[in-house]
Amino acid sequence: MIENLWRGVAIIYTKTGEETAKKIENWIESEKEVPAISFTYSSTDLSYIWSCYDAIIFVMAIEGVVRSVCKLASSKDKDPPVIAVDDAGNFVTPILGGHWGANEIAKEISSILGGKPIITTASEIFGKDSVESIARRLIAKIVNPEAIVKINSAILRGEEICTDGFSIQGMREGKDCKYIITTSNFQDPNKVVLKLRLLPLHVGIGSKREVDVNLIYSGLMEALSKMNIEPSRISSISSVREEVGKIAEMLKVKFILYNLEEIRIFSNPCLTPQSEKLKEVGVKGVAEVCALMSSGLNPRLVLRKVKLSKSATIAIATGE
Amino acid sequence: MIENLWRGVAIIYTKTGEETAKKIENWIESEKEVPAISFTYSSTDLSYIWSCYDAIIFVMAIEGVVRSVCKLASSKDKDPPVIAVDDAGNFVTPILGGHWGANEIAKEISSILGGKPIITTASEIFGKDSVESIARRLIAKIVNPEAIVKINSAILRGEEICTDGFSIQGMREGKDCKYIITTSNFQDPNKVVLKLRLLPLHVGIGSKREVDVNLIYSGLMEALSKMNIEPSRISSISSVREEVGKIAEMLKVKFILYNLEEIRIFSNPCLTPQSEKLKEVGVKGVAEVCALMSSGLNPRLVLRKVKLSKSATIAIATGE
Repeated sequence: MIENLWRGVAIIYTKTGEETAKKIENWIESEKEVPAISFTYSSTDLSYIWSCYDAIIFVMAIEGVVRSVCKLASSKDKDPPVIAVDDAGNFVTPILGGHWGANEIAKEISSILGGKPIITTASEIFGKDSVESIARRLIAKIVNPEAIVKINSAILRGEEICTDGFSIQGMREGKDCKYIITTSNFQDPNKVVLKLRLLPLHVGIGSKREVDVNLIYSGLMEALSKMNIEPSRISSISSVREEVGKIAEMLKVKFILYNLEEIRIFSNPCLTPQSEKLKEVGVKGVAEVCALMSSGLNPRLVLRKVKLSKSATIAIATGE
Repeated sequence: MIENLWRGVAIIYTKTGEETAKKIENWIESEKEVPAISFTYSSTDLSYIWSCYDAIIFVMAIEGVVRSVCKLASSKDKDPPVIAVDDAGNFVTPILGGHWGANEIAKEISSILGGKPIITTASEIFGKDSVESIARRLIAKIVNPEAIVKINSAILRGEEICTDGFSIQGMREGKDCKYIITTSNFQDPNKVVLKLRLLPLHVGIGSKREVDVNLIYSGLMEALSKMNIEPSRISSISSVREEVGKIAEMLKVKFILYNLEEIRIFSNPCLTPQSEKLKEVGVKGVAEVCALMSSGLNPRLVLRKVKLSKSATIAIATGE
């Protein structure tokens, strides 16, 4: 589960939970290879984190977590999975989003902490996808939102759902079910068809002065493969280094070159906060900014920046 | 702890948790001898329960509990202790009010369910009273609320607090501390003094036609003793049975006789819902109604009705 949280995991902790928080952060980064960013509770604007990350882990007493999430929770379909871990790492408790990932995340986290996952939801509806989570995973837009409720209810009732144009675990490819999720132009007035439009992807690349084109290319292919995304969905590659243009050539996509001033003035609430090290040397991360700037209207990160090596990072965004 | 929850424990459950809910209800009623009332989640107006009971136990998945309490939670000092128990009774998790009772309640409940209490708050501030909870337990009004924050902070910092005019576990009786909680007229401009005014108590008594005066009298004395309340604080006794007047005579307090029509038309959001049995025979409980009607402005229950025997019930209320 955690390896699919490409927009990253936010870990929020108070001083007494720092050790446990760092343990979780290091494990997610090194073993799961997805971004994990930790924030101190007092210095954090939770509303950004709420909409910018794929999961939120609080290392705090449950009451504090509940009072924090109460300010932001809106509905089961929209809220991110939220997990509470006590300072000592004894109990890992899904607070919100149990069926949309929090239970699985809690199990994985508790196993590395030597703690216990506190699973309190009924087991029979475990791990069932919602239409929204499928769309998020495919990085797709739901074309006819009026079908969402019908399909989600069918999923919860355990009815068979077919996929058309893509494959996903637990659903059968085909067009002979009553309920169909399609990425093609398939239509059938006698069936309930939910249409997804796969969104174009924009890759931003940060690199030190010496650009290792082969390393970046293979790192990008590996990241896409983990995300189960065809390279053909890439719409642009961008960077502040001209040499990165070679990767765009290899992929036969548009290359966009930005300058450092453009990077400096761009802002987006979901950008990964600068590390202390980057702050010291006065450099702003470029991969996320490049990816977002290339994504048009309402840009949003779909892969938070990951390091390919000490010398390169990639991030992926989409937009309208 | 649970034996001090005189306004009763509300247990809220969904169908799949009914067995666990009933187990908790029966145990609280029979072993702890305080009122426990269970409600089905779907038929319940949570906002009444929030302010009418001394603790709320949800037998439901934590996510459902969190989404429910988010609508009602206001602040640590005002919210009741809230505990979540999963359907199977495996995990008993304090959700709100960990320091004001929820942790202790969770420990007691888990022991009878054979489950595990999920305590996630720092242990060093366990079981410390707040000024509000002391006032609630003494059934007193805080005369100078502006001193609340100062005294509560001192309690949390571990400073010594003296009590004057009453005694309470964990605090020393006397007037030589910097921080003093008093029920007398004590004043000292060099100290932080929080004044409590003990409120008059109004006892309502329900009885079958044959009034067993001695049984009711001794039951009332026992209840007051459990609540650590002097009989001299009783201001009135009321009932629909004239014979109950003898108890008022014995206590040398006012007796108020109500008729059934007065009982019928009285309403208060915190009244214990009629049992199926009472509904069947068309009788409305009278103890709580009598106690509340006698209590003047803003009446509120301080002891939810308890059965003294099959033939009599008492309830206690206060007001302004």
